Amino acid sequence: MTENYKPLILISNDDGVEAKGINELIKAVLPLGDVVVVAPDGPRSGMSSAITSTVPLQIKLLKKNTGLTIYSCTGTPVDCIKLGINQILERKPDLIVTGINHGSNASICVLYSGTMGAAIEGCVFGIPSIGFSLTDHQPDADFGNAAYYAALISRKILKEGLPQGICLNVNVPGTKEIKGIKICSQTEGQWIKEFYTTTDKKGETQYWLTGEFDNFEPDNPESDEWALANGYVSVVPTQIDMTAHEMIDKLKHWELINEKLRIEN
Amino acid sequence: MTENYKPLILISNDDGVEAKGINELIKAVLPLGDVVVVAPDGPRSGMSSAITSTVPLQIKLLKKNTGLTIYSCTGTPVDCIKLGINQILERKPDLIVTGINHGSNASICVLYSGTMGAAIEGCVFGIPSIGFSLTDHQPDADFGNAAYYAALISRKILKEGLPQGICLNVNVPGTKEIKGIKICSQTEGQWIKEFYTTTDKKGETQYWLTGEFDNFEPDNPESDEWALANGYVSVVPTQIDMTAHEMIDKLKHWELINEKLRIEN
Repeated sequence: MTENYKPLILISNDDGVEAKGINELIKAVLPLGDVVVVAPDGPRSGMSSAITSTVPLQIKLLKKNTGLTIYSCTGTPVDCIKLGINQILERKPDLIVTGINHGSNASICVLYSGTMGAAIEGCVFGIPSIGFSLTDHQPDADFGNAAYYAALISRKILKEGLPQGICLNVNVPGTKEIKGIKICSQTEGQWIKEFYTTTDKKGETQYWLTGEFDNFEPDNPESDEWALANGYVSVVPTQIDMTAHEMIDKLKHWELINEKLRIEN
Repeated sequence: MTENYKPLILISNDDGVEAKGINELIKAVLPLGDVVVVAPDGPRSGMSSAITSTVPLQIKLLKKNTGLTIYSCTGTPVDCIKLGINQILERKPDLIVTGINHGSNASICVLYSGTMGAAIEGCVFGIPSIGFSLTDHQPDADFGNAAYYAALISRKILKEGLPQGICLNVNVPGTKEIKGIKICSQTEGQWIKEFYTTTDKKGETQYWLTGEFDNFEPDNPESDEWALANGYVSVVPTQIDMTAHEMIDKLKHWELINEKLRIEN
């Protein structure tokens, strides 16, 4: 890149364009380049990599200043990235950043997160992409530390890039003091006790999603949950290839059930 | 398992409880055990691993025969699996099968697919899980071959199990003749030309999701798209750990930007 080249940065999130987190992220990366925001017109938490295929999408221009353009979109976080790249931006962005999410996306929450869905989608397009989350759900959470690290890590990735097929899942603890950054793996665990029930006027049971996180490896200092619990920013390199490669050879040695279940080696 | 033990099988999908594909799957695995279906009350294609956290869910008992119970659910495919395991089933199922999806979920469609979202969720719960898809979108597609292979592979996995954290993404070509099964990796590729536009009554642009698949490795005989194009059933072992493990060490050697961006090794 030449000295005068201004990077183009695409931003989205899943808490919606009005959320505090995305506005803190905009401020954090605005000094790094030209920023275009395409974000949902309301909350889309837990939307994962969902796409909208049965109804059309609409976008709305909310702001167009020098260096900062903001659109809202009726779709999901992934729809926002797809619209941004296919329809809105005149060239491929140099960086995609999503968030800053109100709430952790560590461990298996990477599977459910719309913030990470958007970052993963950026990665599918071959663009260096980073999802940022703060371990604090409050609408008025203090994003000071998260914004600081978002700027630092974004600057670094703009300079270094990321390999094809790999994005970053960055979570920032909601504590005042942060010890530094830890490069981590996605913690093994699951959610338990996931529903509480109420009864509506008609006597029908209503199931509300809730839950407790059951950490299968609470003492693993290489895991993202450990890093967050111990005051570190966790950075998990996250890949879009979900193939369990080491399992391929094992499956190839399955015994034949019958001729038609022949395994081709 | 003793000879008299009857396996418990949980079924879901993303095309909805009325779809032909799920009804073919029910028939295919009914000889293998007791079947409980918890499926969306309408189409939920492209819902990925989305969860419903802002409104409550409701379920409806549609059928209760010996060996087959069917519920519909107002939520996403993942909600169906969570409700099935947390609220409906009296014990952990021995197998979760999802589909048979109307349309391919090969390559990166694993990221967007509700059918695979449900299978991946079963895997999070530590239950052997398989997503089945047919490369034919038609509501009245011929599921004969797909149902045959769904029964064979389900029987095999009931016997052998799957390692923790790994499920199967099985796609069946819509051709009459099938050459056998191929164990594959997730094809590298992306969708391009993803929208067409129309204009509504108010003059607003409407963006409809469409697209062409751009296969980055059309000649790789180990990829699932190659298997399908060449008449094989593709089986991709798919893992819930999205960490790019080989990238961890590289990131640990990032140069320090400043004291606060200290990388902890």
